[in-house]
Amino acid sequence: MAKDKKAPRPKAETPKGFRDYFGVEVSERAEMLRAITGVYHHYGFDALESAAVETVEALGKFLPDVDRPNEGVFAWQEFDEDGKGDWLALRYDLTAPLARVYAQHRNALPTPYRRYAMGPVWRNEKPGPGRYRQFYQCDADTVGTASVAADAEICAMLSDTLEKVGIPRGDYIVRINNRKVLNGVLEATGVSDAAKQADVLRTIDKFDKVGAAGVRELLGKGRLDASGAYIDGVGLTDAQAEPVLTFLTSKGAGNAETLANLRGAVGESATGAEGVNELEEMAQLLAAQGYGEDRIVIDPSVVRGLGYYTGPVFEAELTFEILDEKGRKRQFGSVAGGGRYDDLVKRFTGQAVPATGVSIGVDRLLAALREKGRLESKAAGPVVVTVMDKARMAEYQGMVAELRQAGIRAEVYLGNPKNFGNQLKYADKRESPVAIIAGSDEAERGVVQIKDLILGAKIAQSATLEEWKERPSQFEVPRAELVSKVREILDSNDA
Amino acid sequence: MAKDKKAPRPKAETPKGFRDYFGVEVSERAEMLRAITGVYHHYGFDALESAAVETVEALGKFLPDVDRPNEGVFAWQEFDEDGKGDWLALRYDLTAPLARVYAQHRNALPTPYRRYAMGPVWRNEKPGPGRYRQFYQCDADTVGTASVAADAEICAMLSDTLEKVGIPRGDYIVRINNRKVLNGVLEATGVSDAAKQADVLRTIDKFDKVGAAGVRELLGKGRLDASGAYIDGVGLTDAQAEPVLTFLTSKGAGNAETLANLRGAVGESATGAEGVNELEEMAQLLAAQGYGEDRIVIDPSVVRGLGYYTGPVFEAELTFEILDEKGRKRQFGSVAGGGRYDDLVKRFTGQAVPATGVSIGVDRLLAALREKGRLESKAAGPVVVTVMDKARMAEYQGMVAELRQAGIRAEVYLGNPKNFGNQLKYADKRESPVAIIAGSDEAERGVVQIKDLILGAKIAQSATLEEWKERPSQFEVPRAELVSKVREILDSNDA
Repeated sequence: MAKDKKAPRPKAETPKGFRDYFGVEVSERAEMLRAITGVYHHYGFDALESAAVETVEALGKFLPDVDRPNEGVFAWQEFDEDGKGDWLALRYDLTAPLARVYAQHRNALPTPYRRYAMGPVWRNEKPGPGRYRQFYQCDADTVGTASVAADAEICAMLSDTLEKVGIPRGDYIVRINNRKVLNGVLEATGVSDAAKQADVLRTIDKFDKVGAAGVRELLGKGRLDASGAYIDGVGLTDAQAEPVLTFLTSKGAGNAETLANLRGAVGESATGAEGVNELEEMAQLLAAQGYGEDRIVIDPSVVRGLGYYTGPVFEAELTFEILDEKGRKRQFGSVAGGGRYDDLVKRFTGQAVPATGVSIGVDRLLAALREKGRLESKAAGPVVVTVMDKARMAEYQGMVAELRQAGIRAEVYLGNPKNFGNQLKYADKRESPVAIIAGSDEAERGVVQIKDLILGAKIAQSATLEEWKERPSQFEVPRAELVSKVREILDSNDA
Repeated sequence: MAKDKKAPRPKAETPKGFRDYFGVEVSERAEMLRAITGVYHHYGFDALESAAVETVEALGKFLPDVDRPNEGVFAWQEFDEDGKGDWLALRYDLTAPLARVYAQHRNALPTPYRRYAMGPVWRNEKPGPGRYRQFYQCDADTVGTASVAADAEICAMLSDTLEKVGIPRGDYIVRINNRKVLNGVLEATGVSDAAKQADVLRTIDKFDKVGAAGVRELLGKGRLDASGAYIDGVGLTDAQAEPVLTFLTSKGAGNAETLANLRGAVGESATGAEGVNELEEMAQLLAAQGYGEDRIVIDPSVVRGLGYYTGPVFEAELTFEILDEKGRKRQFGSVAGGGRYDDLVKRFTGQAVPATGVSIGVDRLLAALREKGRLESKAAGPVVVTVMDKARMAEYQGMVAELRQAGIRAEVYLGNPKNFGNQLKYADKRESPVAIIAGSDEAERGVVQIKDLILGAKIAQSATLEEWKERPSQFEVPRAELVSKVREILDSNDA
């Protein structure tokens, strides 16, 4: 009715940076989310689902990329009676909505409030290969306690979660650090200007890429990068840069050595000492619970981009190697991260509410498991009952109903039945294990034909004549034995 | 860093028409979606998840409310390098994205393509009580077949699904109709003007509210409504209005009688006859599979608002009564609907692609089950290990780790432990079944105190002194028996 016949045809395309997920991609993710939230639930975390849409005001300006604090979200303005309304936006993470929820409902919620949340988040960023503007996160946060036992608990839970979804011990490491240590190091440099401190933090974040010598140059006058471009430095003196370098290279052979080195790096800073003490307490709690340094380790190079962290920060990294697009080996890298953020709720209420949490990048974690062949990805196509005789449709429907009642996935072919070859091609495309054939001849004799498609494919590929004769891939059974015979074939395929 | 200290505090509020879901609300919905998609999967439907965001162009103008074809979505314009870009919008249902997906990927997809999808959809409408601008749908559609066997299958699956999620037979009815019958009736009226036909359809949709006499007035000159306002009529003559009324009152004692009445209502219209034949074929297929008229029945009063239906339409209604806001009894009403839409994919490709499907309003279905007390809603709060002595935190963490390894949900109290009463209040708020108490005295003696909070609450309410003595709600057990004793209490609560 509302259709204009003269309008040009719309393009059948996802918007740039968005994609569709099919079949097992969807069910594998659902299974992973179920497994993760199962662990969270066991740790006493409660589910929370907020809407995808928040006011821009409530979301705030805490996007990871602090260079562009006001960009990066999908936003629009509401129109009310007066023609103007609130600016709304899609959430860019699950933490900002949590801060709003806690501020809004704090009287009804327990304190501390442990909550988990999962779902898509949206970033209005330039899409790239494998980089989408909608992706899944699965978060757990504890709001309302300043105890580092809460941070330690999150790290332990993260470790348990990774093992639960199929990353074996040894293939991941949870690395922890503390922003107070960083702040202590900044104090030791004598840099008090906030903008300059932010520059120092950004430089520290490049340690992985440019190494200690590179950081030293970038903290000072600047550096000629690989492409030949000159990158301006932060402009610290050598004496100012020294604590930063001591800090960056302070990872020792074990937590004890690292902690000793960090005490050196923070010098006289009280904040820095507090940070080192917190790291020590976390390490002790985790060790007492049996989480060794092979699973959770202090690592000063963990900075985490987000400006809002105030204490412990942590990151889970997968340590096995994969091949990148260009066939080069590289570590898979980070799949989860988080930390303590004591000021997010304060934005709303004026009162500081200590909080800590972790966010798992579910799509990256799935990609890692696929890469390692650790997802079963059983397509489990349906049994297809073919249509030999359109007038017998009700009988075919009866067969699939029986199969389903026995717990077997099954369907009738509903395309044009004239070309029987198309029906078998369809079954192939569906990765069907079995096709059922029953025309009027079979009906008269009270039988059905069963075609074992998986065996058929094997035979077509490689069987000898003897094998072919011994176990034919198509055979006839009494109609009453349809379900039991199909079950037998499915079980033998699973074995 | 990006925070302006002088900025006024943001309001901690959801945008108008959005809400937060907590705890069991979230897990009950997750369980329902899992149950529904389990049935869909068994019927051979494959999962599809498209993004929440589509181009406005791809979404089209098919919103349910045809009075405002271009409104009702949350939309915004992209900004590319040149400052302008595509208009994007949040999906308002799961059918429009399916049409886009099928048009985009049709060469890779099987035909027919059975797919299911679930997730939130967004409507930019005026919110009202219980009426939100984000809600869940769970759809199943079959694309690429014109066979009414596909429509019958969807209706059978809908019936199975309702029973699977806990609506017993007798408490729901799937009502089916056919748009071709309606079109036949329109032909029989002699009204050929599209706008006027739409007016007739809208009037038919009011049958439930105003009855046959009301519809007769509204099809003619008009009608004084209950509020005293005069509603203009469509302006048909009595002779033109007659087939519409015959149609509306054609529901007989059973499908056979209804079909005979409908044949009368469509008169000489070939389209109408085709519609009646399709209804008859669906009824036969469903009857042959054992779906009686107590579950799925032909009902001419089902119109379905959406303009895009072209053949069979269906609607699932819950037939039990609930009390509305004003305490009046009323039927719960519709929880699912759908039908055949053969033109949606054509918008993209120019070729007609027959399709049919159903959408279940998951939030309404959950509301119905809650209303009837059919959701278990077991909060299943965690066992809370209290903190008697902060220095023993690692021991407490060890206890919860042991409990979790035994599959028991457990947590350490992480708030300020100074006031022990607050710890027990917290356990109450969490609906904890058991609290564990272990200070230095208990540690020395190798025991823990176990407090049965559910029994404690019962005793506090109603126990006699004898009962109190016989089964104390707090007792001491050796530390090694912590897990087995807690398990015993939990099992006795479940029994």
